[in-house]
This record gives sequence, structure tokens and C-alpha cells, in this order.
Amino acid sequence: MTQLYGGIEAGGTKFVCAVGRGPDDIQAERRFATTTPGETIGQAIDFFREHGPVTAVGIASFGPVDPNPRSATFGYITTTPKPGWGNTNLGGMVSEGLDGIPFGFDTDVNGAALGEWRWGAAQGLDTFIYLTIGTGIGGGGLVNGRLPHGLIHPEMGHIRLPRDPQVDPYTGHCPYHGDCFEGLACGPAIGERWGQAADRLADDHPAWDLEAHYLALALVNFICTLSPQRIIMGGGVMEQKRLFPLVRQKVQGLLNGYVQSPKILQEIDSYIVPPGLGAYAGVLGAIALGQQVVRNYEL
Amino acid sequence: MTQLYGGIEAGGTKFVCAVGRGPDDIQAERRFATTTPGETIGQAIDFFREHGPVTAVGIASFGPVDPNPRSATFGYITTTPKPGWGNTNLGGMVSEGLDGIPFGFDTDVNGAALGEWRWGAAQGLDTFIYLTIGTGIGGGGLVNGRLPHGLIHPEMGHIRLPRDPQVDPYTGHCPYHGDCFEGLACGPAIGERWGQAADRLADDHPAWDLEAHYLALALVNFICTLSPQRIIMGGGVMEQKRLFPLVRQKVQGLLNGYVQSPKILQEIDSYIVPPGLGAYAGVLGAIALGQQVVRNYEL
Repeated sequence: MTQLYGGIEAGGTKFVCAVGRGPDDIQAERRFATTTPGETIGQAIDFFREHGPVTAVGIASFGPVDPNPRSATFGYITTTPKPGWGNTNLGGMVSEGLDGIPFGFDTDVNGAALGEWRWGAAQGLDTFIYLTIGTGIGGGGLVNGRLPHGLIHPEMGHIRLPRDPQVDPYTGHCPYHGDCFEGLACGPAIGERWGQAADRLADDHPAWDLEAHYLALALVNFICTLSPQRIIMGGGVMEQKRLFPLVRQKVQGLLNGYVQSPKILQEIDSYIVPPGLGAYAGVLGAIALGQQVVRNYEL
Repeated sequence: MTQLYGGIEAGGTKFVCAVGRGPDDIQAERRFATTTPGETIGQAIDFFREHGPVTAVGIASFGPVDPNPRSATFGYITTTPKPGWGNTNLGGMVSEGLDGIPFGFDTDVNGAALGEWRWGAAQGLDTFIYLTIGTGIGGGGLVNGRLPHGLIHPEMGHIRLPRDPQVDPYTGHCPYHGDCFEGLACGPAIGERWGQAADRLADDHPAWDLEAHYLALALVNFICTLSPQRIIMGGGVMEQKRLFPLVRQKVQGLLNGYVQSPKILQEIDSYIVPPGLGAYAGVLGAIALGQQVVRNYEL
């Protein structure tokens, strides 16, 4: 347990880098803006050179990415619309800048999920979902103890949900799908729908009930599709803690007793929960991705 | 490869039992109505005694079921509304009647998925979905090479989808959720909506376009949630082969280029497909569940 690991939470706005071994042992941390790949990745390499050496580095990245270790473009950010970052060999460039050390690489949300499994709100589970509700919406998790990839990787923010235009005439924020889950329930959608930023809306504003309604519809779909043992909800929007009791109640109402599990029927307060690692889920998840390359955590 | 295996496709209407080793080696088959647990399970045991001995038996069952081998109620049909079958130890009763041989047990759709992976349209894949669209709608598959269970097991027929009441005023067939996926798109829903059985509707009836629309919405949600490498669609409704090209085109339209994979953008004819094992997917899947107890197929 003496080896140090590096983690990069690679976001479209900022990179968060850390060196350490876990939540109680972060030895250094640095945050900087995401500019060009050359400059930003260079800053990350400098940070690890300064605070290392690290045995391996984990990268939990914005996407879409290629998280398949058997693929020729493993470690790449692939078709992102973010200018300059399409087809960027993020994992390879970081590794090369650090004398070729091994790297772990996955989506930001799969990384955060792995961190929650190691040290946070998903310890001991083999199938759960981690959602982030913020500027965008993404989802990851574990299924039978493994990070889900499949064809590419999940894009849980883009499922389609019912919307009643008489209740909610807002047609959605997503440039691809309009009123998909992200289009209806991400932070900017709340702002556009109500004409003011989400964090300025009063506690009793109808925005919260509608937001909880869409979140609950999405959760019901994920429950029916993946049967998770728990759902962790993070991200800026979920800082509004009043959403949790509303979402829990609406999930129960929508499922209407169909999924006969005490976890949902009686213990929903511990079924739909905030991240155990709070805002550190991202970079700790990245460290966990780095550790996973060297050790084997598989259930 | 000389051992014989038994398979039970346990449906709410009928049981299909078979003894064999795979699709080219079914040595005996019998079908009988699902009446009481005692009578029906007794008939299955008689069949295997007559045509065995079998090394193990696999059971792919209607549900909800308990497919978790570590659970005290593994092998049970749990909370089914079917009269007399709630809390039935199906796996245990079959095994006990056959001198305690090992049994595999899962949902009907996870069983069918396993059969398709062994011998059918999902060979070589590690993450895919098998859907049945018939009297009800169910979904199973593999995720990273393992059958998904989680809290209980997936109930993919009960995700919520958008419905425009101006286009489709039918409020749905599901007694729990009204217009969930199953409520909108199962065979009885088609019959109720249009006032005649699905298999009597003309080729150019608008029913097919609307049915394909709901199927495509559901597929998009499963693609975004699980990122399957392929989707297999079976069941009575999918016997209407005209649905496949409609569904493929609508999935592409709804995704709108968001999932940048050639499998979806260019090769969708081999991405959304009928079962390779046809109507035998169910009982062959059950045999595969039986084989899996003895061998280890895990990827």
C-alpha cells in the first residue's frame, strides 16, 4: 500500500489532478482550465513529475471516449464536439510524458462510480448506477462488478422520457435530441425553462417538483433496465438536497409496487443517495482507475 | 460433450421441456399447459425421468424470479400475479424430483439471451440485449459476459416512454403503469388500440409505423443505458418482419448521429436482428443455463 497513484478528472471545463492512495491520503492536488490538448495535458504531466513518481495514472474523462483496452484507439477522446479535442490520444500522451507508465482510462462517470465502489456509497455492491446531474447528465456504474462498456459506453443522459407539453412547454436543451433526459433536466435546462439560474430558485418554486419528476422517470427507466442495488446521484443540480426526498417519493409512485424489493418499498432513503465522496468522487475515481490497472479489484 | 442436459422454458401459459446438447442435438421435447405448480412441475420431472438421465437442468422462467444463487430463495418464482404460482420453489422442486441434480435458473429472457450467445445471433459478443415482444415485453442479455441480475433482475418492459396523446390516445395496457413500454407496444396493446388482433392488420396499416416508433424509442433508451453491441428482438409481435426495417430507420433517426459507431450509423441491419434460434431460443437457452451450472462459459 505504499505506491502512489495519479488521477486525472478530465472535464471539458477543467482538469483536476491528484496524487495519492485514497480519500484519506491525497498528497497533492491541482486544478487548471481545459484549454488546448497540448497545453492542458502538458500541465498534467508537469504536476505528476513534480509530485510523483506515480506507479500508474487513471484518467476519468469527458467524452465520448474509447475505454476498450483491446481497441487501437484505447485512451482516446473520440468524437467530442469540444474544439481541438476530437480524436485526442489523452491516455497515450499522459503515459508517454511519464516514461510510459500504465494508465487506466474510462468515462468520467464510470471513474466516479469506481471511486464510490472503493471508498464511498457503493462499497460492497456489484451492480449500481452513478449519475451526475449538472451542466450535462451522465451515468456510469458497475454491472456484476465490472464497468459497463459494450459498443462504446453508456450515454445515460440521452434516454427519452415522457413530457406533457401542457405542464411543461419547454422543448429541451439537447442539441441532438431536444427533450431527452439531459435536455429536460440538466442545470442549463432548469435555467432556460424558468428564466433564472437553478441555484436562485426559491425552495418552494415549482421547478423543483418538475425537476424531481424528470429525475424520477429516468431512475425508473434505469431501475427497469439494469436493476441496480443502489443509485448514487451527484453533480451540481443534486447539491439542491431538497430534490432527494422528492425523487425518492416519485420513484416509488411511478414504480407503483411493481419491483417488489424492500430496498425500494421500505428502504428507499438508502437506495437513492448522494455520493459518499462528495465533490472528490471524480478525482478519487480516477485514482481508483489507476490502481485498477496494477491490482485487480474484480468481484 | 456426451452428457445430456435438460431445459425448461417455463412460461405462464405453457412449459416447454427438452433434453439435448444444443440446437443440432435435441433428443426429446414436450409441451404442456401451465396449470398448478404440483401438476406442471410433476409433468416436467416425468419427462426428464423418461428421456434422461440429465446431468443438470436449466430453467428459464416467467417471473418475477430469484436468480441469485447466494439467496435463500434462489430458484423461486416470487411475487407473480399468476394464481397459485407466487412463492413457488420451481428450481428446488425440479431438482428434488430428479435426485438432487444441479439446476441453473434465470428469467426467460436471460435464458434466451444465453442461448443466443452460445448458438445464435449473439455469438462472440459480451454485451447485448435480447428482447421479446409478445403478450408481454421482457428483456435480458449479457453485460461484460455476465447475465445481469442486480437488485432482482431487469424488467425492461416497464420503462416509461414518450406518448403524444394527439397521435395516440390509447392509454396503455399495463395494469401497473398504463402506458409504459409493455403497456404501449405488447401484442394485446396493438389489439386494443386498433380494435383487431395484430396479425390481422394489413401491411400498410398505420399500426406498424406506430409500433415501430415505440419499439425504436425503447431501443434508444436501452442503447443509451447499456451500450449493447447488438439487439435481438424476438416474440410473437416481431414475427411481423416488416417491423425490422422500420425500427432500424427510426432508431437512427432518434439517435440523430449521437452514438458515433459504424454498427449503428452504417451496419444497423446487423445491429438490430431477429433471434438466430427462432422459436427455439427459449428452451435452448434453458439447456444453456443447465450447461452453465456444470461448465463455465464466462468471458
